[in-house]
Parts: sequence; structure tokens; C-alpha cells
Amino acid sequence: MTEYVITPPAIASLAVAGTSARFPVRRIFCVGRNYAAHAREMGRDPDREPPFFFMKPADAVVDTGAAIAYPPETKNFHYEIELVVALSKGGTDIAPEQALDHVYGYGIGIDLTRRDLQLAARDLGRPWDWGKSFDHSAPIAPLQKLAQTGHPAQGRIWLAVNGVTKQDADLSELIWNVPEIISTISRSMKLAPGDIIMTGTPAGVGPIVRGDHVTGGIAGVGEIEIRVV
Amino acid sequence: MTEYVITPPAIASLAVAGTSARFPVRRIFCVGRNYAAHAREMGRDPDREPPFFFMKPADAVVDTGAAIAYPPETKNFHYEIELVVALSKGGTDIAPEQALDHVYGYGIGIDLTRRDLQLAARDLGRPWDWGKSFDHSAPIAPLQKLAQTGHPAQGRIWLAVNGVTKQDADLSELIWNVPEIISTISRSMKLAPGDIIMTGTPAGVGPIVRGDHVTGGIAGVGEIEIRVV
Repeated sequence: MTEYVITPPAIASLAVAGTSARFPVRRIFCVGRNYAAHAREMGRDPDREPPFFFMKPADAVVDTGAAIAYPPETKNFHYEIELVVALSKGGTDIAPEQALDHVYGYGIGIDLTRRDLQLAARDLGRPWDWGKSFDHSAPIAPLQKLAQTGHPAQGRIWLAVNGVTKQDADLSELIWNVPEIISTISRSMKLAPGDIIMTGTPAGVGPIVRGDHVTGGIAGVGEIEIRVV
Repeated sequence: MTEYVITPPAIASLAVAGTSARFPVRRIFCVGRNYAAHAREMGRDPDREPPFFFMKPADAVVDTGAAIAYPPETKNFHYEIELVVALSKGGTDIAPEQALDHVYGYGIGIDLTRRDLQLAARDLGRPWDWGKSFDHSAPIAPLQKLAQTGHPAQGRIWLAVNGVTKQDADLSELIWNVPEIISTISRSMKLAPGDIIMTGTPAGVGPIVRGDHVTGGIAGVGEIEIRVV
């Protein structure tokens, strides 16, 4: 039993549908520009530039229904709806054909972004962390176990702000699918149980302000909502 | 007591000099280009571009003495010696004058970097995570409690590869000092007990290869060593 010199942090965790037990979060991997139409709205050419990865700290997760404080240092706070994959099994150099054996279940996340900070960093060749990895930047709906969802490879993914649809696409539009994402990360890092992956957002990203009610969903996986306060 | 659907990850932690108890790590903040001579060796003008932040996942920490496997996907694996600050108290909008009250102690870290991946990301305006945030990328020597070190604001910081000195500077050359770093982060994130900060590296960064023995130290704080295998 390890003793600590200060109180250790709580283990970050996600709700799991149908149980009171929670899924412990080790790391959060995110895929950037994994839908062609979103890459284009960000001014990039998806045919020439493949997707890529970034990370958020594990304790950025918050449950659906959260009231999220408008974060400091931004004037352009954005939503990005995403399919979330949770891993129960790790490894390195995982073949795409074996990758789905590592999946615990699926959820829905909103990759909250301080867009002004992210774009300023991008244009200066600086790290994106201040735009992506801030407190409460990863609200995630209860994970669904595989028995409920199977492995969703198609189906509607959508987000609305105050009831007005802003993002509306299909999971089949993912440039890198879930097996490819898992396999690609595992060639660069040792994946571990508790790792989760936010798989990228479709086109239609935009700003949210205090008072906004953000809802979203993925067919067969569920729904998520947050309020900005 | 939270129940988990899979075994939760171990809490990442650091050794503390003089005790068998460990310091639990919540997040790792890193400062980029915080020594002018290093900013210049990276082709940047420190007079026009202030330092900035990025992050590593908490479980990237490893103790001094570790044998670190040469990481995948790089042909240019670099060392960067840094002063590490460990926080026992958190908060937002911390004034520089109060910042040192939040410090638990100090250590020495090596910000291991896949330089080729980092520079490719920088030049494409992409996130730095794949260059900075990989497994075992944060070896850190045992933390020293304040009673041992006070708040080091000057003193030699150095690193050698196979006994040949590569980095040799003084903590007084930090562009942002420790109180300024803590204060600046706390305006953008809520700092928490267990957060650690790697304060940036001086000039002289360079490659390491399998078989290399890397040693480093900071006057009054201690020494660190790793082997690349």
C-alpha cells in the first residue's frame, strides 16, 4: 500500500450505463481533423493532411448534465461532438484486425475547445494544450457496454445549441475508423486499460456562451447535454 | 467508496527524499522556451516570443535510475534537463507574491522529447503531444522538501551524456521564474495539489541513443540519472 505525503487526487472516472460502478480514466487521446468536412471548415485539405492526435488530462472529464463554467482566457469557446471509445485492454503494436478486442464500450463526448487559443497556437507552431486541455474540457455521457452498442461504425452523430442543430453527420464519415485509431496510437504509445479516445468531430463547430444548453447524440449510443454557466 | 468496472490505474507518483511516502502526481505542466539561449537554439527570438505551456500525462513520470526504452517512431530522441516544482496547494488567480506558498518541494526532471515529431508538428501547426507526451517521457529525481532546498532561484543546472557536459546554465536565467509560472497557469486552469511543473530547459539539447548514460543535477536540489536501452 503506497503512502502519500499529500492526499492523492481522486481517480477520474466515467459513468457506465446500467451500473453504479464507474470506468476509471487513465489518459484521454483525441483525434484531430478526422472528418473531411471539418478539416475543410478549419481551412485544411483532408486529402493531403492525415488526422493526428493530441491529449487532455484525465481529470478533464465531467459527466453529462454538468454545468460548465465559461473558461477563462477565451472569447471563442467551442463545442465539438465526438464518439468516445473506452479501452479495457492495452498493448503496443495492436493490429487493426485485433483492435476491437481492446474496447470496453462507447460513449459520447464534447471536445470543448478554447478556439482562439488553439488557433493562435496553431498559427505560431505552438502546443495546442492551452486551447484543448483545460479544466472540464471533456464532458462525456455514460459509457455503453458492447452488449448494448456493438461496435458503431455508422449512424447519426449530431449536436444542437438551444435546440438548433449545428453538427449533423454520420460515423461512417470518419477518416480513421476505430480499429485504425487504436492501432495507430498503439504503435506510438503503450495503450492501457482506462485509456479513452475521442475520435474527432464532424463539421459545424461553433461558439457557445453563458446560458447555452448544448445537447448531442449518436444513434445507438445515447445522448449528452451540458449547460454553460 | 467508488467501485470500478475495470481495475483502476495506479496513481502516478514521485519519490520524496528522506521518506518512503510518495508524492501523488495529478497533472504535469511544462514550460516551453523558458531560457533565452534555448529559444535561440530552436530558431526563435525570446525577445519577441514569450514562453508557453504544454502538458504530459501524469503517468509519464518515472523515477531516477530508470532504464528507458528508446521510444518508437523517432530517430531523434532528445534530453532536456529542468527544475521541477511540486504543488501541495491549488487555486485560481494566484498572485505571484503568494505563489510560493503553494509549493511542496522541488525536483529535477528530464523532459524527454521525440524532437523529430515535435518539430514536424510545430512546422505544420499541429499539436506537440506526440513529440512530448509519450510513455516514460518524464523521469524525475526524488522531490526535496522546502526545508532542504528553500526556493531555488539561482544555482547551476547541468546535464551530461556519458560524462560529457551538454547543458550547463543557471536557474537565474529562467525567463519566467517559479512564482510567475504558477501565477500564469492559475489564471488559465485551477491548479490542484499534486500538480507538478517542469520549468523549461536551458541551451544544449541534443540526441541520445541506446546505451547512453544521462546524468544531470541542480545545485542544492540533487542529481538524476537515466540509461537509454
